[in-house]
Amino acid sequence: MKKVNRVAIVGGTHGNEFTGAFIVKKFEQFPNLIKRSSYETLTILGNPKAFYVGRRYIEKDLNRCFLQENLQNVTLASYEDIRAKEITKILKEDSQTKVDVIIDLHSTTANMGLSIILGNQHPFLLKLAAYLSAVNPLVNVCYTTPEKGSNFLRSLNELGFVIEVGAVAQGVLNADLFQKTEQLIHTILDYLEKHNQGDIPETNYPLTLYKSIGTVDYPRNENGEIQAMIHPDIQFRDYQPLNPGDPLFLTLDGKAIAYKGASTVYPIFINEAAYYEKGIAMLFTEKQIITDVGV
Amino acid sequence: MKKVNRVAIVGGTHGNEFTGAFIVKKFEQFPNLIKRSSYETLTILGNPKAFYVGRRYIEKDLNRCFLQENLQNVTLASYEDIRAKEITKILKEDSQTKVDVIIDLHSTTANMGLSIILGNQHPFLLKLAAYLSAVNPLVNVCYTTPEKGSNFLRSLNELGFVIEVGAVAQGVLNADLFQKTEQLIHTILDYLEKHNQGDIPETNYPLTLYKSIGTVDYPRNENGEIQAMIHPDIQFRDYQPLNPGDPLFLTLDGKAIAYKGASTVYPIFINEAAYYEKGIAMLFTEKQIITDVGV
Repeated sequence: MKKVNRVAIVGGTHGNEFTGAFIVKKFEQFPNLIKRSSYETLTILGNPKAFYVGRRYIEKDLNRCFLQENLQNVTLASYEDIRAKEITKILKEDSQTKVDVIIDLHSTTANMGLSIILGNQHPFLLKLAAYLSAVNPLVNVCYTTPEKGSNFLRSLNELGFVIEVGAVAQGVLNADLFQKTEQLIHTILDYLEKHNQGDIPETNYPLTLYKSIGTVDYPRNENGEIQAMIHPDIQFRDYQPLNPGDPLFLTLDGKAIAYKGASTVYPIFINEAAYYEKGIAMLFTEKQIITDVGV
Repeated sequence: MKKVNRVAIVGGTHGNEFTGAFIVKKFEQFPNLIKRSSYETLTILGNPKAFYVGRRYIEKDLNRCFLQENLQNVTLASYEDIRAKEITKILKEDSQTKVDVIIDLHSTTANMGLSIILGNQHPFLLKLAAYLSAVNPLVNVCYTTPEKGSNFLRSLNELGFVIEVGAVAQGVLNADLFQKTEQLIHTILDYLEKHNQGDIPETNYPLTLYKSIGTVDYPRNENGEIQAMIHPDIQFRDYQPLNPGDPLFLTLDGKAIAYKGASTVYPIFINEAAYYEKGIAMLFTEKQIITDVGV
C-alpha cells in the first residue's frame, strides 16, 4: 500500500443526518483537530442546501448520484446531480485536492451503533476495519455490494467507506453519538498516520463481516400502502440473529408475520426512516468471520 | 357536562409523524374498533399530501394554521391554510359532522412517553387526564398556554387535546408506541362512553400537571448556527427535574453549559427534531399537583 497523501471527511451527504454535518462544522472551526503530520485532511459538507432546510435531499438522494455514467451525463442537472459533479471534481479529478481515502459520515434511525460500511474488500480497508472493531467493541463492519456499479459517494475512491451511526432520529443532534463518532474518526486518522510512518501493528485481528444478501420490503396492499410494522421483537436489534420462524413484522391489526427463510440471517438497517420510500424495511446479511485479513 | 355526540380522532396533522397517521389508517380499515353505542367517532388524516411524501408539511406547519383570524382570511392560500379551513369546516362548522371532542395524535423525537397535552383547563379535560394518568403510569399531562390565541388544531374545540408519543424518529412506524397509543385511545373512548351513560367513577384522582413556562433555544453564533447540543445527562430525560447548576448543553468542543435559573424546572420536548427550525431546544415546565379536579 502506498502512502496516504490526502484524506476527505464528508458529512451531511444527507442533509438531515446531523451527526456528520456537525462534526464537519466542528472540524471547520477547529482544523487542528484533524491535522496529522504525514498527510492533509480536508472536510466537505456534502449537501449544504439540504442541511440548511433539514431534509435528506432537495431533488434527489445525493448518495445515489455517483454512478460513473451519470457523473459524465451533462443533461443531469438537478441540484444533487450538480453537487455530485462538484464533489467528484474535488475528491477525484483535481490534482490539487484529490484524495486517497474518503470517510463519508452518515446516521440512521436503525440501531447500527458505530458501523463501518465497505463497498469493496480492499485488503487495506479490511485490515483497518478489523483494527477498529478490535479496539472498539461498538464497531460493526458490513459489506454491501453495489448492484449495477456503485452510485454512492464512497465509491469515488477504492479506499472510500461509510461510518453509519445510530439509532438517532433524522434532524436531531445526539451528543453521545456525536462524541463516539468523533472519537472513531480520530482513531482512523491516527491509524492512517501510523500507516504512513510504517508503524501499523503486526497483529492480525480477525474481522467479523456482515455481508448484505438482499433487502426486505414492508408488507403492502395493492396500492402500495404499508400493512405491517417491524415486529417489536426485532426493533433496534440490528446485527442480531434472525432464525427461521422468528417474528419479522406485525400487521396493523396485531398479527405476527414470521421470517420464512431457510437459514439464519443478521438484519441491519431495521426501520431506517429514509428507506420507506425505497421499499426497504431492512437488509439481510450473512455473518462471515475472516481470520486473516493480512495485506 | 353535556352528552358527547361526536368525537374526532385526527392523525398525521404532521405528515412524518407516522404513529397517528397509521392509527387513523387502521381505524379507517376497521371502523368497528372505534364504534361506541352512545356517540359517533370520525377519523381524519390531517395532512395527506405531507404524509404521502413523509414530511412534516408541504408549505407551512398545518398545526400552526388554526388561528381564528387566519381561518377567516381568504388571502391565505397555501396547501396547509386551505387544509386547515377544510378541517375547520368538518370539525366545527358543518352541523352534520361537527364534534364535541378532538383527539389530535402526534409523535416526537423527545422521550415524552404517552403525553396528554392540554391547551385549556376545562374541568372535564382535567378529570379525564387525571383518570388516564391514574390508570396508566406511562401517561404524563402537560398544559401549554397559547401565546396570542391558539393556532393549534386542538383549539377548534374546548374539549380538544393532543396525544404526544415518543421517543420515535420522524418517518418511522414504531410498533410498541403504535400499540400503546391505540390502547390509550380505547381507554379514552370508553371513558367518554361511560360519561354519556352517567357512569364515570366518583373517584377523584389527583392530577400532576406540567405547566409550560417558556422555551429555551440552542446556543447559536451570530449567524444563527447551533454551537451546542443537548447535554447527554438530560437527553431522553423529559419530565425529570432540572436543578440550578445542572448541565443543560454541551458545546461542540465539549464544554458543559449549566442551567442558570433560580428554581427547579421540568424540561419537556427535549431535542424535538421539528423544533430546531422554531428555535426551541426544549420547553421548561413547572410541576403542579391538583388534588381536586372535580367537575
